[in-house]
Amino acid sequence: MSVRALTTLRNCDEIFAEFYTSKLNDAQPEDLEAFIGKQITILRRADVEEKDIIVSAAREKRVAFITAGDPMSATTHVDLRLRAMEEGIRTELINGVSIFVSCAAAFGLQPYKFGRAVTIPFPEPRFLPSSPYENILENHSRGLHTLILLDIKQEEERYMTAPMAMRWLLDAEERLGKGLVRERSLFCAAARVGSDRQALLAGFPDDILNADLGPPLHCMVMPGRLHFMEAQALVALAHAPREILDDGSGSEAQK
Amino acid sequence: MSVRALTTLRNCDEIFAEFYTSKLNDAQPEDLEAFIGKQITILRRADVEEKDIIVSAAREKRVAFITAGDPMSATTHVDLRLRAMEEGIRTELINGVSIFVSCAAAFGLQPYKFGRAVTIPFPEPRFLPSSPYENILENHSRGLHTLILLDIKQEEERYMTAPMAMRWLLDAEERLGKGLVRERSLFCAAARVGSDRQALLAGFPDDILNADLGPPLHCMVMPGRLHFMEAQALVALAHAPREILDDGSGSEAQK
Repeated sequence: MSVRALTTLRNCDEIFAEFYTSKLNDAQPEDLEAFIGKQITILRRADVEEKDIIVSAAREKRVAFITAGDPMSATTHVDLRLRAMEEGIRTELINGVSIFVSCAAAFGLQPYKFGRAVTIPFPEPRFLPSSPYENILENHSRGLHTLILLDIKQEEERYMTAPMAMRWLLDAEERLGKGLVRERSLFCAAARVGSDRQALLAGFPDDILNADLGPPLHCMVMPGRLHFMEAQALVALAHAPREILDDGSGSEAQK
Repeated sequence: MSVRALTTLRNCDEIFAEFYTSKLNDAQPEDLEAFIGKQITILRRADVEEKDIIVSAAREKRVAFITAGDPMSATTHVDLRLRAMEEGIRTELINGVSIFVSCAAAFGLQPYKFGRAVTIPFPEPRFLPSSPYENILENHSRGLHTLILLDIKQEEERYMTAPMAMRWLLDAEERLGKGLVRERSLFCAAARVGSDRQALLAGFPDDILNADLGPPLHCMVMPGRLHFMEAQALVALAHAPREILDDGSGSEAQK
């Protein structure tokens, strides 16, 4: 968290948190409480979205609401802020470090070259959406990178891993067959980005399928057209196969 | 900066910084030195890219390199890190808060719905690129938001403002004429995002042209298809015209 966040939290009367849109790396909520020096009330999705707990408290006291990921990146969070503002409650947004940027930075990929991000959902019977595949394909066809976020079911403690996501992508290729995922298509997989125990890997689908990157959170990137510097970074930082340096753009699935 | 960054900086022997890719909000370098409790050596672009100052120092001591913006978002930064690694110097990346996310969050726009970002350059004779306009158009035609970064010439202390960027976009529309920028196209302009003196505005081209958002840094967003929650956020947070709530998507230039 930023120094400003820590100072602000210490000045609050009550602190709420949610860990259903993302997850703490390297820490349990108790560690966070010890770090801040205050108690934290953890809320479930229903508490945040359907009940009035946070806004009620904020009518009387200085209240903080902590998220493990981006504090405004889910409509649930934006809705909360707007509800508070409608009641005349003053709100302040303090950003932390976001996966949208820390994942790009970890791999040495240029953040401006990312197209829209996608999320790969846990497969369920009759729920096999084509939009993640289609969106990656659109970005890739324009030479852009895609940040691929992986599904979280926090209440069941299920966190999708990179091999599971790679399996999903291979299955989607079989279903939709538009040539996005080939034998030598380059993918990046990361675990616990930004933590001391971060793990990075860049490789072909078989490499990702068989990788053991350790505990969650995992995320992936499908690179588009690589600038030579980006290709060098993937080799140096993520063990990418050196052959991607030869053509300067080993990730083009259309070759 | 994050608490981790502050702790790390205090444990370094030498601290370098560059402010040519971005700029500190609300602070001068002297304030930063006072905050950390150590001296900072500010480098110019040539010092970072052509000389060996940072890597030389890092051979002997613990060296930190601070940037005002994303520490890996320019090839200059990635190159520095790779050069250090080639020499066997251990490197560690500590992310701060990035404009790519803090700008989206400030406006209540969903970060995953952004297509590729663009930069609008200071106009120069014979340098009127079409790619910023074309890239925004591509994103917009897919319903995606575009983060529009504005040019900085730090050595000359020139920072493009939102009205200047809006002027550029209107001129590009006149030149390229593909219907991206219309009378009622919605744009967002922000100044000093993430600071206490942040200013936000959402409006039509004339509103942006005539806005005084104060000192730099300015940035912009051209929203794509707005989710109803995003439209509400723009009205509540950035004074967007209420009419954007009526059709749920007042930003579609193709209407």
